[in-house]
Amino acid sequence: MPFPVRYELLTRCSRTEARRGRLHTPHGVIDTPVFMPVGTQATVKTMAPWELEELGAGIILANTYHLHLRPGEDIVRRAGGLHGFMQWQGAILTDSGGFQVFSLASLRKITDEGVQFRSHIDGSPRFFSPETVMGIENALGADIIMQLDECPPYGASRSYLETSLRRTLAWAKRCKEAHARPEEQALFGIVQGGEHLDLRREAVDALVELDLPGYAIGGLSVGEPKPLMYEILAHIAPRLPEGKPRYLMGVGSPDDLFEGVERGVDMFDCVLPTRIARNGTVFTSTGKMVMKHAQYRDDFLPMDPSCSCRVCRTFSRAYIRHLLKAEEILGVRLTTYHNVHFLLNLMKEIRKSIEEDRFLAFKREFYDRYGYTSEREDV
Amino acid sequence: MPFPVRYELLTRCSRTEARRGRLHTPHGVIDTPVFMPVGTQATVKTMAPWELEELGAGIILANTYHLHLRPGEDIVRRAGGLHGFMQWQGAILTDSGGFQVFSLASLRKITDEGVQFRSHIDGSPRFFSPETVMGIENALGADIIMQLDECPPYGASRSYLETSLRRTLAWAKRCKEAHARPEEQALFGIVQGGEHLDLRREAVDALVELDLPGYAIGGLSVGEPKPLMYEILAHIAPRLPEGKPRYLMGVGSPDDLFEGVERGVDMFDCVLPTRIARNGTVFTSTGKMVMKHAQYRDDFLPMDPSCSCRVCRTFSRAYIRHLLKAEEILGVRLTTYHNVHFLLNLMKEIRKSIEEDRFLAFKREFYDRYGYTSEREDV
Ligand SMILES: [Zn+2]
Ligand SMILES: [Zn+2]
Repeated sequence: MPFPVRYELLTRCSRTEARRGRLHTPHGVIDTPVFMPVGTQATVKTMAPWELEELGAGIILANTYHLHLRPGEDIVRRAGGLHGFMQWQGAILTDSGGFQVFSLASLRKITDEGVQFRSHIDGSPRFFSPETVMGIENALGADIIMQLDECPPYGASRSYLETSLRRTLAWAKRCKEAHARPEEQALFGIVQGGEHLDLRREAVDALVELDLPGYAIGGLSVGEPKPLMYEILAHIAPRLPEGKPRYLMGVGSPDDLFEGVERGVDMFDCVLPTRIARNGTVFTSTGKMVMKHAQYRDDFLPMDPSCSCRVCRTFSRAYIRHLLKAEEILGVRLTTYHNVHFLLNLMKEIRKSIEEDRFLAFKREFYDRYGYTSEREDV
Repeated sequence: MPFPVRYELLTRCSRTEARRGRLHTPHGVIDTPVFMPVGTQATVKTMAPWELEELGAGIILANTYHLHLRPGEDIVRRAGGLHGFMQWQGAILTDSGGFQVFSLASLRKITDEGVQFRSHIDGSPRFFSPETVMGIENALGADIIMQLDECPPYGASRSYLETSLRRTLAWAKRCKEAHARPEEQALFGIVQGGEHLDLRREAVDALVELDLPGYAIGGLSVGEPKPLMYEILAHIAPRLPEGKPRYLMGVGSPDDLFEGVERGVDMFDCVLPTRIARNGTVFTSTGKMVMKHAQYRDDFLPMDPSCSCRVCRTFSRAYIRHLLKAEEILGVRLTTYHNVHFLLNLMKEIRKSIEEDRFLAFKREFYDRYGYTSEREDV
């Protein structure tokens, strides 16, 4: 049976693991490496689907935990799945909800069978197992669905990480067995194992054995130092099958995108661009800008004069600062739109640099302009 | 000196005072009767200017009081006036700020000279006089600017209304004298006088004497019963000069639009469509709908199946309800867009009905479908 999502390798960087490819999905062909904007509750916060399309987003995320609680997967299914519900014609990936169970829900009790928890909305008792999560993700109908996993915090003990990893691997197998729509939805496995390279390798081996259509690297960007994350990535990404897509979960700062691509990652997602936009912070080619700062009150330049997005072509810093200070919704719409454009455009330039085999040179140029030093910022 | 804003009468209704015309402004020709969406803080809440353009809005409002406090008229002026600041190519009208001084500001002290108050944002002391307000409105640079007036509450005593009216009329004269850009911005006078028809007539006579380019009727929709408002309107509107536009301030429910047009009004503004949208209430051809109601959770019809707006062509009630319940900004964007479309489209149909001399028949059809009875709803 052919996988519903297939990775096509186009070009490799001659000096790093960076690779340029294409993801063939039931909802379009996506150029990789790719950044996927996050639409937790079936909407990329503040944005209309036609705006995402305008920005060239090919694939977005939605969240299984949130959508299970509200509006419930049955309503989404009856609306024609997430594509019909939110009227998004591109590809969609749903995470398993495991991460939110561990970060948002209360009264969690985890066993090999699954995890019991209470909804953070109304306190109602819920149970996620590999089987129930597959049921939910099958109903949501995304093109790529993630296995249920446990994402231990940074600093968990070796013995806890071992127990947790074996459980996550057993859940991967049960997810594969419970997956009811394997011809329409691609199930991705998730490599856990904390900072222990041997556990990470064990995870890779077990998941590769399952022959899934794609693999994610989870449990990174959870508080560990960046060099450690890059080391783990360098160790793991190249061990994943060359013919399948590699997805680094929850990572999206410009430096992490470069470092991930350099180590062979194809897919990224992160709430960062939309979240900081709602606080009034934007990415620009010369670094981040806090738009509420007083210095912009009579600054009539675009947010980023070198940005080609509709917001930067239209509005001044002074106007956007005014909207943010006055708590007008248009303000966060404009910063969000620009930030999503910024990361999508950055990935486009990264892809081009790989095609032209000047990835490292482009990275250096970007870092110099953006203001990254050897001691990097956190965002 | 020709006025910068000129009214052209096209057709009259044969059975009522309704009239179909055109407003020629420095930023476009506007078909009347017209509804003007309100952009208090230099943004029609949640909407981008290109969306207003898409909906065919020809003229919008902005608020002198709010923009004086934040960001300050000097910044707006340096941005090229409101048109440049908010990047709106259509016409703009600024109110005088008087209404907000009386409803929002604290520690007001009103004299013939002007009104002292404290900013509702930071408590700073401010002073509005006809001269300072003209200075602000000249800096903001709208096509139509309103005189400073006092808008007494419903129920004020006859003697207070008399004193207040004479002051408002004196202010009209001082505004005309202080107005520094009469060739670019049209100053409108405001008819006050409460429910006393003789005071209203006195106001009309005094303002007509000033030969201003347009006249507004203020002090209505401030708590009085609707039949009283309609009676005052019927008495006053036809007394205003036929060759000049007539603007009924702060009114925008569907029935008030019909009743105002029927009595000869050309221009309306109201925060109603955008305000109720943010609470999840929408206008439809069959009456208002409260989108958060549980009955819409699995209702996959458009909000208004007979609406041609982009929102109704794209999204289901179930999706919009989900967005509103999840407090997602896209939800209020969609309800706002639809509501503004609804009123702009209603005015378009009203204009057509006047052209075809079937205004009253159209009004009856609309009322029947919308569910208005002789005892009308409040909104
Ligand atoms: Zn931009
Ligand atoms: Zn609509």
